[in-house]
Order: sequence, then structure tokens, then C-alpha cells
Amino acid sequence: MADLTRFGVSIQTRLLEQFDQLIAQKGYVNRSEAIRDLIRGELVDVAAEHDEGEMVGTVTFVYNHHVRQLTDILTEFQHQNYGAVIASLHVHLDAENCLEVLVVRGKSGEIRRIADKLIGIKGVKHGKLTLTTTGSDLT
Amino acid sequence: MADLTRFGVSIQTRLLEQFDQLIAQKGYVNRSEAIRDLIRGELVDVAAEHDEGEMVGTVTFVYNHHVRQLTDILTEFQHQNYGAVIASLHVHLDAENCLEVLVVRGKSGEIRRIADKLIGIKGVKHGKLTLTTTGSDLT
Amino acid sequence: MADLTRFGVSIQTRLLEQFDQLIAQKGYVNRSEAIRDLIRGELVDVAAEHDEGEMVGTVTFVYNHHVRQLTDILTEFQHQNYGAVIASLHVHLDAENCLEVLVVRGKSGEIRRIADKLIGIKGVKHGKLTLTTTGSDLT
Amino acid sequence: MADLTRFGVSIQTRLLEQFDQLIAQKGYVNRSEAIRDLIRGELVDVAAEHDEGEMVGTVTFVYNHHVRQLTDILTEFQHQNYGAVIASLHVHLDAENCLEVLVVRGKSGEIRRIADKLIGIKGVKHGKLTLTTTGSDLT
Repeated sequence: MADLTRFGVSIQTRLLEQFDQLIAQKGYVNRSEAIRDLIRGELVDVAAEHDEGEMVGTVTFVYNHHVRQLTDILTEFQHQNYGAVIASLHVHLDAENCLEVLVVRGKSGEIRRIADKLIGIKGVKHGKLTLTTTGSDLT
Repeated sequence: MADLTRFGVSIQTRLLEQFDQLIAQKGYVNRSEAIRDLIRGELVDVAAEHDEGEMVGTVTFVYNHHVRQLTDILTEFQHQNYGAVIASLHVHLDAENCLEVLVVRGKSGEIRRIADKLIGIKGVKHGKLTLTTTGSDLT
Repeated sequence: MADLTRFGVSIQTRLLEQFDQLIAQKGYVNRSEAIRDLIRGELVDVAAEHDEGEMVGTVTFVYNHHVRQLTDILTEFQHQNYGAVIASLHVHLDAENCLEVLVVRGKSGEIRRIADKLIGIKGVKHGKLTLTTTGSDLT
Repeated sequence: MADLTRFGVSIQTRLLEQFDQLIAQKGYVNRSEAIRDLIRGELVDVAAEHDEGEMVGTVTFVYNHHVRQLTDILTEFQHQNYGAVIASLHVHLDAENCLEVLVVRGKSGEIRRIADKLIGIKGVKHGKLTLTTTGSDLT
């Protein structure tokens, strides 16, 4: 287990009540975990603003697999970027529509570039990039 | 002054070091203030997801005042919504471009509706809505 | 193929040049595809603001699988929500850290509730929800 | 007036119907204006990702003016940054709460730094930064 520290927070009683209510709704079992999550979220957001740090991204996109050659183009694209694209998940939404999620690892600027190119491929209806941590730097 | 409470947070030592570094960069003088700000930010974000709560919004928009009748249209629009639009600030960016900020108060759904209409007016180059608290419910 | 229509856009020459430069960087082969993507992105964003429409979400989260019982808790959680959670992808980031992506389908309010609960589980370091279309309503 | 160009967009008939419905709700009078706004929004978003371009930001923040010395600290802070902070608007939300909006001009990295510092001042309940264009580069 990681080395633990304890610190105190002084806070308005009313503000703490509102926070307790919010985290109960979100299913947190204790305040410390909720505070740690707020802190980690802030650290990841600041890291994502910079282009040079190593991060992991997931690119979620939806497309119609009946569009001619689209599946081939998407597969080819992933292989061209095989150093960064480390895995993918495919879900059949209905007879025509597919959702795919790629996990991409690298500098955040490079991950953004790959996501932009992928989302720009004709036939991809909608796509979005989520940046997260590699975990190694975040306890 | 508001009634204060103190609570303890247990956290990985390494995570706390990263947080201390981040808040030093942001100019915080102590952790409690930084934690309270994270909590308030989360409460405002959740409130903004719902359409019915009372909030305050600022609509920032940029336009070219040489566009025919645009200034009249914008003034007229603000007066039609005088119950919600409570103040405005006008900045002359250059010989042509103006930035204006409106402060709008009401239910968040209503604030969004006003912002959408305003940003959609022909000649408005760019606009964005920021939702914040009225302060009365946030200590 | 879907039924196609053509419409004209009048635009400042300078603005079009900037747009052409941007979409070339993003790898678009033609303007129509870039415009359709902007339109679809806007439609998905507006849909995500409402709690009642059917959408698909991907929840990306990172955790340390050495945390006691965490893997069991995460698996149990997914099974409790088996009607909504339709697939998952697991990536081994390093000896300790795992990234997992869940694909969740349902009303956007329900998807948000599941994502909040999941991200709030102790041991989950960071998590984010991305909402997208089921594709069926978006050509 | 700016030099105008016209270009054609081919689009699925169903997608265009959905777009027409959305822009009618938002109060647009024609498609060209709505398309131009999507394009400008995209250009501003991309510009804001880079730290070096000149932009304008508005910092919206809420505070309780009864907090000892807070008004002095905020005024002092604005004067220390007088080269970047070009105007401010103050609204009295109730007997205690004030909303203030600052207009800040400079490189986006510098604007972010000023906003972070301001929002971090003890007694500021909530604050947010909005980045927009100076207008000069956006027709």
C-alpha cells in the first residue's frame, strides 16, 4: 500500500453539509476518497493542458459499417498508428451502427492528433477524445 | 463569519505532494482554501446540470459594431429580457471589434435560452456562457 | 445510402480560408464532411444536456488492481448494472495499473448515475464519462 | 463589409432537417449564419488550446464583500496586472454577495495564470475563465 498522510481541512459547516449530500448521491463511502478524487481529477486536467506529458486517451466513435470501405480504412488507420493505439473495443449498436473505443497512449499532443484524424474520417458520425492518466504517476 | 468545522483527510503522501505543488503554482496560501474551492466548483457544476435552480450566468460575446443595426438589435434584445439581464460591460477591442459581457440571473434553463438567442444574432462573431452561483447558497 | 441534399453557405472569404486550413490539419478530405461533423457534434452536445434521450456513454477509468477486492467490486458493480453496461475493455498499463472502458447504453441521466457511482468506488484513481449517439437517429 | 464567398455542402436530408430544427430553436434566421458560428467556435476552441496566441478572456467570480480586506486584495490584484486586466463589471447579488467580471487580454497562457491566481484568493467562492477572440483575426 502507498504511504499515507493525514491533513486537516477547515471548512464552513454549511459547505461541508452540501458536500456530504453530494458525495452520498454519488455513492462515496467516505469524504477522504471524495477529496482524493477531486484532487486527482484536477491533476489530470492540468496535465492534459500540456502537450508533452505521457497520458492515455480513449477515442470513442460511432460509424455505419455499411459505408463502403470504411471498416478497411479504420483498420488500416489503426495499424498505421500501432505504436500508439494499444487496444480497441467494438460494439454492435444495431444492424448498421457500430461504436468503437480505441485506447491510445503517448504524449497528449500526439493523442489529440490521432483522435482528430480518426474523427475526421468520412463515415465516422461522431467521436470524442477523453484524456486520462497512465496511473504510474498518480497514487 | 460563517460557522466553521474541521475534518481530516487521509491521503497518499505522494498525491498530497503533487497537490501542494499544483496549488502553490495557482497561488493558494493554504490547502483548506484549495479544497474548499474544489468542493464549491463541484457543487456549481452539478447545479448547472439541472435546469430549475437559480443561478447567475455571464454571456461573453464579441461583435463588429460596424455591422448595420447590430448595436440596436443587441440593445433591443437586452431590454426585451430586462428581468433577467441585470448588467452589461462593453470593451472596445479595436476600431471595429467590441466585447460585451452580460450578467444574467434566473433558472439555468432560461439563462441558456437567452445566451443561445444572443449568440445566434447575425454579426455576433463568438459567444460563450459561464454559469456560476448566486452566492446565497454557497458559503 | 442516405438521401442527400445540397445547400449553399455564404461566408467571409477570410473565414473560409481559416476553416480550410484547420480541416486540412485535422485530415478532412472535403468541407462537406467537416461541416457535417460540426453539425453532428452540436446535435450530440444538445442531446446530452437532456436527461431523457437514449444515448451511449463510455466510462474510462484507471485503477490499481492490487487494491484489495477492487477487481471483485468492479465486476460485481458491472453485473448489477448488466442491463445498461453492454461491454468492457481492459488494458494493462503497467504491473499495477489497469485502464478499463465500459460501454453503457440508456437514458443520459441513468448513464451519468452509473458513471458517478463507478468513478466513486474507492481505488478508482480517475474516471471520465463521454456521451455519444446510438447512431440510429444520426445519419 | 468583408469579402464574401459561397460554397456548397452536401448532406443527408435527415441530418439537415435536424440541424434546421436545432437552429430554429436557437433563434438563427438562416443556415449560413449558424454554419459560420460553428466554424468560428471551432477556430476559437483550437486557438485556446495553444498558450501563445493573443486572446481575450473574461473571468467571472463571486465573493462575499464582508470578508475582511477582500475588496482591497482584489483591487490591488487587478492593479498589479493592469497591463492585462482592461475592465471590470461589478454586480451586487444580495446584501453580501458580489459578482465581478474582469476582461483580460494577452497570451492565453498568461490569461490562465491571472485567472488561476484570482480564483485562488481566499474568499472568492467560485470563479471561471472564458476564452474568446480579440475579433481582429475572425471575420
